[in-house]
Amino acid sequence: MMTQKDRLHFEDLEEGTKIQLGSHTITKDEIIEFAKEFDPLPFHLDEEVAKKSLLGGLASSGWQTAGLTLRMLVNEFLGKIASMGGLGFENLKWKKPLMKGDTLTGTVTIASLRRSQSHPEKAVMVLDFDMRNQKNQQIMTMSLANLVAVRHPEQTKGEGA
Amino acid sequence: MMTQKDRLHFEDLEEGTKIQLGSHTITKDEIIEFAKEFDPLPFHLDEEVAKKSLLGGLASSGWQTAGLTLRMLVNEFLGKIASMGGLGFENLKWKKPLMKGDTLTGTVTIASLRRSQSHPEKAVMVLDFDMRNQKNQQIMTMSLANLVAVRHPEQTKGEGA
Repeated sequence: MMTQKDRLHFEDLEEGTKIQLGSHTITKDEIIEFAKEFDPLPFHLDEEVAKKSLLGGLASSGWQTAGLTLRMLVNEFLGKIASMGGLGFENLKWKKPLMKGDTLTGTVTIASLRRSQSHPEKAVMVLDFDMRNQKNQQIMTMSLANLVAVRHPEQTKGEGA
Repeated sequence: MMTQKDRLHFEDLEEGTKIQLGSHTITKDEIIEFAKEFDPLPFHLDEEVAKKSLLGGLASSGWQTAGLTLRMLVNEFLGKIASMGGLGFENLKWKKPLMKGDTLTGTVTIASLRRSQSHPEKAVMVLDFDMRNQKNQQIMTMSLANLVAVRHPEQTKGEGA
């Protein structure tokens, strides 16, 4: 099992790095199962209602799209990072619905990476998300702020190993 | 079954209204089950690892807190509204972790409610969330923007029935 020491710390990360996420094709059953638990609105539960709604057909809850995105982020990146937890996010926008049978994928960019002044053992990393469907249409964007451990809190970056 | 016509439309809603959400007490099993699916980081999966983490014990994924909040919102409010879907949210902040055995509750305020100029059949409603634990400590805040149907798009508000 990976220990915290083996994970990527502040010193191992760099602003501007792009991470290609995996992909997930969403099924009708997944949409309905998630909606039943978290977002039981008629147009996420019933295909006939969905067709008559603004969405034009069965689409995932926007929160399911966010959850799937999180899972891809953990798989491809956050699971390898010495993460100390999330702080929150901003500007989450659902641009287009993710319809039944659509494939969600996307890229994440390390938008900023900054040591905490008051807590030198921590850094704040901001990740920008660009989530798209199989037609390369933008589905969701957001910025997530996450705490990352600093490996050598006693050193300032650039002072050497 | 409730039809769209029976639901609360733009004309039935008012800025400043506060909605008391229900409550949910989170168990160890719920935390681990959610984390396995969406946020499989060690400190959400293993109580021993969690105790040594910044969280100080087993706590829900912040995304689970958001999901539970959404479910309460649908139960108490959104399920009764002629919602046309979510647009996104802003300023989501995880203030304190929701620990195993904690009870999540909170209030929602209709922060703004505004007809669309270009689409008179739609209005944008912004909801501000103040989520707390059983000790009245703030756990999460966010602002959600949601589309609501206008019952009489041909009328301007205040022109009569």
